[in-house]
Amino acid sequence: MVKLYTFHLSTNGRKVHMALEEAKAAYEITPVNLMKGEQKSPDYLKLNPNGKVPTIVEDGLVMWESVAILLYLAEKFPAANLLPSAAQDRARAFQWLVWQPTTFGAPASSLFRQLRFTPEGQRDQNAINQARAEVTKNCEILAGGLQGRDYLAGRFSVADMALLPYLHVLAELSIALPAAVDAYYKRLSTRPSWGKVLAYTG
Amino acid sequence: MVKLYTFHLSTNGRKVHMALEEAKAAYEITPVNLMKGEQKSPDYLKLNPNGKVPTIVEDGLVMWESVAILLYLAEKFPAANLLPSAAQDRARAFQWLVWQPTTFGAPASSLFRQLRFTPEGQRDQNAINQARAEVTKNCEILAGGLQGRDYLAGRFSVADMALLPYLHVLAELSIALPAAVDAYYKRLSTRPSWGKVLAYTG
Repeated sequence: MVKLYTFHLSTNGRKVHMALEEAKAAYEITPVNLMKGEQKSPDYLKLNPNGKVPTIVEDGLVMWESVAILLYLAEKFPAANLLPSAAQDRARAFQWLVWQPTTFGAPASSLFRQLRFTPEGQRDQNAINQARAEVTKNCEILAGGLQGRDYLAGRFSVADMALLPYLHVLAELSIALPAAVDAYYKRLSTRPSWGKVLAYTG
Repeated sequence: MVKLYTFHLSTNGRKVHMALEEAKAAYEITPVNLMKGEQKSPDYLKLNPNGKVPTIVEDGLVMWESVAILLYLAEKFPAANLLPSAAQDRARAFQWLVWQPTTFGAPASSLFRQLRFTPEGQRDQNAINQARAEVTKNCEILAGGLQGRDYLAGRFSVADMALLPYLHVLAELSIALPAAVDAYYKRLSTRPSWGKVLAYTG
């Protein structure tokens, strides 16, 4: 049984939640309410000293960093085929998997924070402009990665699970996506595992 | 033959350079001079649209994201044992490997930029204070991860290679490290592969 500590609106939590669904893993969710600051409670900090979600606990293993958890789950549940087996396809999966937190995630989150959680008069227009420019550039890079492919590593993998929650954020903001990225987002959105993630309301 | 595009002072480039040395891989370096903006040249952007180093090219594979490259090299050169084999040790390696770019790297780099590359009168004291606080907190988290262990995943792995260039940056700034982290940094610094990396001057 995998115990997942997450918040229902967390993009990083959603990656892991989706992977658990894809893997058909036995799991249970313990909500950590970010709105109430529960991620900074002494008990939670013992599990995850970064004070962030998600964290998984399983059979004595305590693990954080959503992208690392995706790699772990892909190996733990080989039948789910969450990582390709050919070396170059795996390389592609690794690359996009890591690119999401280093490059794609932050400006998308920043845009969401500004446009959804900041009252109009208090928004930082420079931050919005910069985040928009980065999101636009990153979407072009992503479109390049999808050229000739339906999924980033050729077939569906953990790399796509890392990107999907962030594409969902952009869709919620009605940000126009390049055609290839939009089609990719819609393709990923139809997965039953993602339906389960969105149906989870904590 | 692995072709590595890097800049001799790049922390992310150094990770990959070290891994190639550890793997005893056949490789050659193509310098990309960040000081001259060569990472933004049209030819380089065709390889790496992010305009960053490092990139590797090998047998038709073009790959960026240093942490992803470490995972790829660990699998490509199994004899070098760059990743543990037991599931929970691998989980630890994945966790710290990903934690480096998501959490540890940026404040260390920010501090270095401010204190080494910004003239004293133009420094942003708020940015320095914030980066210092984050570096301190992260070093405590790292010390926690090293409790009872010489290396983050029990034995030397790609996770340590991801951290070392950033610890080197902190050492260059004479930032005091917790005892466990300082001992860890010194332990890693003695590896011949790291000596080769530092000896490389582009």
